[in-house]
Amino acid sequence: MFPTPDLNAARQRIEAAYRPELVRDAGHRLIDAMADYLVRVQACEGVVLPWRAPPDNVREAAGFLDKSKSPDAPCGELAEYFSQIVRTMLQRCHNLHDPRYIGHQVPAPVPLGGLFDAVGSLTNQVMAIYDMGPWSTAVECAMVDALGQRIGWPAGQFSGLVTHGGSIANLTALLTARNVQLPGAWEAGIPSGGRPPVMLVQADAHYSVSRSAGVLGLGTNQVVRVGLDARRRMDPQQLDDCLRRLRADNQPIVAVTACACATPIGAFDPLDQIAEVCRRHEVWLHVDAAHGGSACLSARHRHLVRGLDQADSVIWDAHKMLFVPGLCAFVFYREGRHRFETFRQEAPYLFDPAAPGLAEYDSGLRTLECTKRAAAFGLWGVWSLFGERLFTDLVDVTFELGQVLYGKLQAAPDFTPLHDPQCNIVVFRYTPEYAQGFSAERLGQFQLALRRHLIESGQFYIVSTNIDRIGALRVTIINPLTTPDHLDQLLDAIRRSGEKVREATD
Amino acid sequence: MFPTPDLNAARQRIEAAYRPELVRDAGHRLIDAMADYLVRVQACEGVVLPWRAPPDNVREAAGFLDKSKSPDAPCGELAEYFSQIVRTMLQRCHNLHDPRYIGHQVPAPVPLGGLFDAVGSLTNQVMAIYDMGPWSTAVECAMVDALGQRIGWPAGQFSGLVTHGGSIANLTALLTARNVQLPGAWEAGIPSGGRPPVMLVQADAHYSVSRSAGVLGLGTNQVVRVGLDARRRMDPQQLDDCLRRLRADNQPIVAVTACACATPIGAFDPLDQIAEVCRRHEVWLHVDAAHGGSACLSARHRHLVRGLDQADSVIWDAHKMLFVPGLCAFVFYREGRHRFETFRQEAPYLFDPAAPGLAEYDSGLRTLECTKRAAAFGLWGVWSLFGERLFTDLVDVTFELGQVLYGKLQAAPDFTPLHDPQCNIVVFRYTPEYAQGFSAERLGQFQLALRRHLIESGQFYIVSTNIDRIGALRVTIINPLTTPDHLDQLLDAIRRSGEKVREATD
Repeated sequence: MFPTPDLNAARQRIEAAYRPELVRDAGHRLIDAMADYLVRVQACEGVVLPWRAPPDNVREAAGFLDKSKSPDAPCGELAEYFSQIVRTMLQRCHNLHDPRYIGHQVPAPVPLGGLFDAVGSLTNQVMAIYDMGPWSTAVECAMVDALGQRIGWPAGQFSGLVTHGGSIANLTALLTARNVQLPGAWEAGIPSGGRPPVMLVQADAHYSVSRSAGVLGLGTNQVVRVGLDARRRMDPQQLDDCLRRLRADNQPIVAVTACACATPIGAFDPLDQIAEVCRRHEVWLHVDAAHGGSACLSARHRHLVRGLDQADSVIWDAHKMLFVPGLCAFVFYREGRHRFETFRQEAPYLFDPAAPGLAEYDSGLRTLECTKRAAAFGLWGVWSLFGERLFTDLVDVTFELGQVLYGKLQAAPDFTPLHDPQCNIVVFRYTPEYAQGFSAERLGQFQLALRRHLIESGQFYIVSTNIDRIGALRVTIINPLTTPDHLDQLLDAIRRSGEKVREATD
Repeated sequence: MFPTPDLNAARQRIEAAYRPELVRDAGHRLIDAMADYLVRVQACEGVVLPWRAPPDNVREAAGFLDKSKSPDAPCGELAEYFSQIVRTMLQRCHNLHDPRYIGHQVPAPVPLGGLFDAVGSLTNQVMAIYDMGPWSTAVECAMVDALGQRIGWPAGQFSGLVTHGGSIANLTALLTARNVQLPGAWEAGIPSGGRPPVMLVQADAHYSVSRSAGVLGLGTNQVVRVGLDARRRMDPQQLDDCLRRLRADNQPIVAVTACACATPIGAFDPLDQIAEVCRRHEVWLHVDAAHGGSACLSARHRHLVRGLDQADSVIWDAHKMLFVPGLCAFVFYREGRHRFETFRQEAPYLFDPAAPGLAEYDSGLRTLECTKRAAAFGLWGVWSLFGERLFTDLVDVTFELGQVLYGKLQAAPDFTPLHDPQCNIVVFRYTPEYAQGFSAERLGQFQLALRRHLIESGQFYIVSTNIDRIGALRVTIINPLTTPDHLDQLLDAIRRSGEKVREATD
């Protein structure tokens, strides 16, 4: 076939690596390994996080690169080695499906979401232009339509897209806002002369929002933090005052970013009031609903996002409270006409003048990614299989568990909840009698140290945050298999870790 | 367990959706469906692209959302419906594993890469901080080390990261360059007053490079295109002249972007000469080696990227010529100290002062993503299983096929190759006798129309581009199962499509 024997041998090795029977043999072993894994992990066998110092894991991962087999080895031998590698991966990974995992805003996903994802990976159904991923494009369009209508918008008037995570979603929406609010910025750069443009953000907004100001050339100093009320929600009155001042000074305003909810304690801003203020001052309202957008699917909790439909742009992560594997983040524009304001570029081999109508379906015109994976397969698959009610259930159950934990914290004399949770994010401090004399700073350090002890022990996985600059413990109940009993165990485990840390520092 | 019966019912439905035995049953059906699919597709049964107008696919995808089962249905019933959905996905998808797929720079991936990916999806091993994905972080570090050393850098001196695609990789590297070259830009925004900063790019560079100038607040007008030589490679002499002029005018320069290779015809810039020019003018050299970085793994083709190790930043997509599923793009900095120049943000619950050494392993400090999927599992898994030589084989075989196609085009009286290909990207026009009298413009339109006819017929998948503003046909031989025989069939299929288009327009 080729002029030289070594190329023919190379070609044979490639054919061996692509053998469908190898996929079949390895694949069945993979499925059994993953199903066995779920049985073990859901039953709380073993630790939540198999803590090891990073260099130890890196050394082991690097070691695998030198121990390969030849692709033309027998299928059985390769599949066996494949499953050894997979077993190591499953042994070293963080066990999010353990009900004692209640950490970051990253869910224990519906496992079949991962299987639907695998169809996209194996067949490589990437997008950018419609041709390349006709079904992944269709699935994305269907999900944009479905979720946008749940926000409350009429079909056909809004627009949306899927991107790789909430941070890139915020960046995309704020880039669009920048281009709309500062005409010419795309072509000529951030306008110089005159007052420099600013971005207003909820004071507790995720770091990706102010980071966007740095990326987009506005400068992080140009971020104006709007004050919060006692429940850490953006205060519409302070927003109004701030906008009035800025308008009086002729300061260009790129956008106001509100949160549904903000990360630290899960506070939902009063969107309807904020929208009214923004409308009055003619300012772009962006809402980071990465976590809380899913409340749209719950009759019980929908009130938390009242006013979301008045935002100019919204982000909503399906890989948070829709419980699909990362990453699947949505960006929405209330007015569909804004969809092509993000960027416009020439790429003749991508956008075919022989079929001009197709550009509407070429995702690369609207996303920071050119080639983009079929990120919505997991969500679309789980919805198609189990229906919308499963998502309602997931929101309702995990939000309720937030209240359950809050009740337990209130009832425990040695814990201090720091807020009445609006969702499944709960922040508190462990305040046993022996810590009564601690300074505020030492109390905060004590929280961080006991959290570190707790997670490295593998008993539970929770996170930490700072409230008023003092360390605190933070839980997101984002594994729907967590029960009230597990939450009792959590308090006990924290007590034990507290003792250990106290002993170590005494 | 919960105060209300409806929440308890919700919880039971969730448990049913998370049943490990459902994963096992559905998973085994998935593997058989995917293995059967590969058998069919590798044998060229059916069409390459199952062309349907986008609204038809969208309507069908949306229809599935209303036809779900309840999660507490019997496992077998759910698994059966799951596999029906999967069969539809496989029926509607673009068949990249068909050897007649030779289109965009998106490979028919090594199928087991998709299976390794599935481990990350199902268990949701996302990163941002080390804790969340201890093994995905380790795997990423191991791959950064391995590939960086193949570029030619000593271990421990460089730094790197994985991100979601080449466009975001270019943006990340250029953001870092901007922050290093324009001190204060991160905090204060693009400096105003004085001459506005510029970015120099290879005239054929991918649209994501000039798009970056728009995103980063520099403005797309500030992109200076450096002229090409006769083989469409950046001309070091023109670069030198251009830099000398800009320096004389005191114009701030963010970076020079060279290509290895540029997308239109796969031209590799003379990196060693370009690096020498950039060093002399003290300018940041960024190299977009999304496609060609993989030549580092081939003794035969390594010469194409000579000088790559002198770049300040490099991007390299594993989801192109390392044949893993999208997306897995690497960004490298020659000097490790640049890794934290991209952005710096406060996020107390992410970066734990109780364990400060861990920040080195917290990927979110260096990537536009906060939560990031385990994007390197596919690459690490394939390398671990089959070894580095498989990647060498893939590069060698597909680059050779570029030469094979070029030979056939030269030998065919009715085809006109537009260049002597340096890799597996080949650009040409179909120029039969009846097209001799066409104007240049009509000849270009004829190429686009026959390409559209060809791909919608499902016989082959190729793409189009413009060379000197005139349409041309473009092939990337990025399915390593394509043979010289398939390339003969391609020429015949183009002839047939040409006839059809001619008849339709006559």
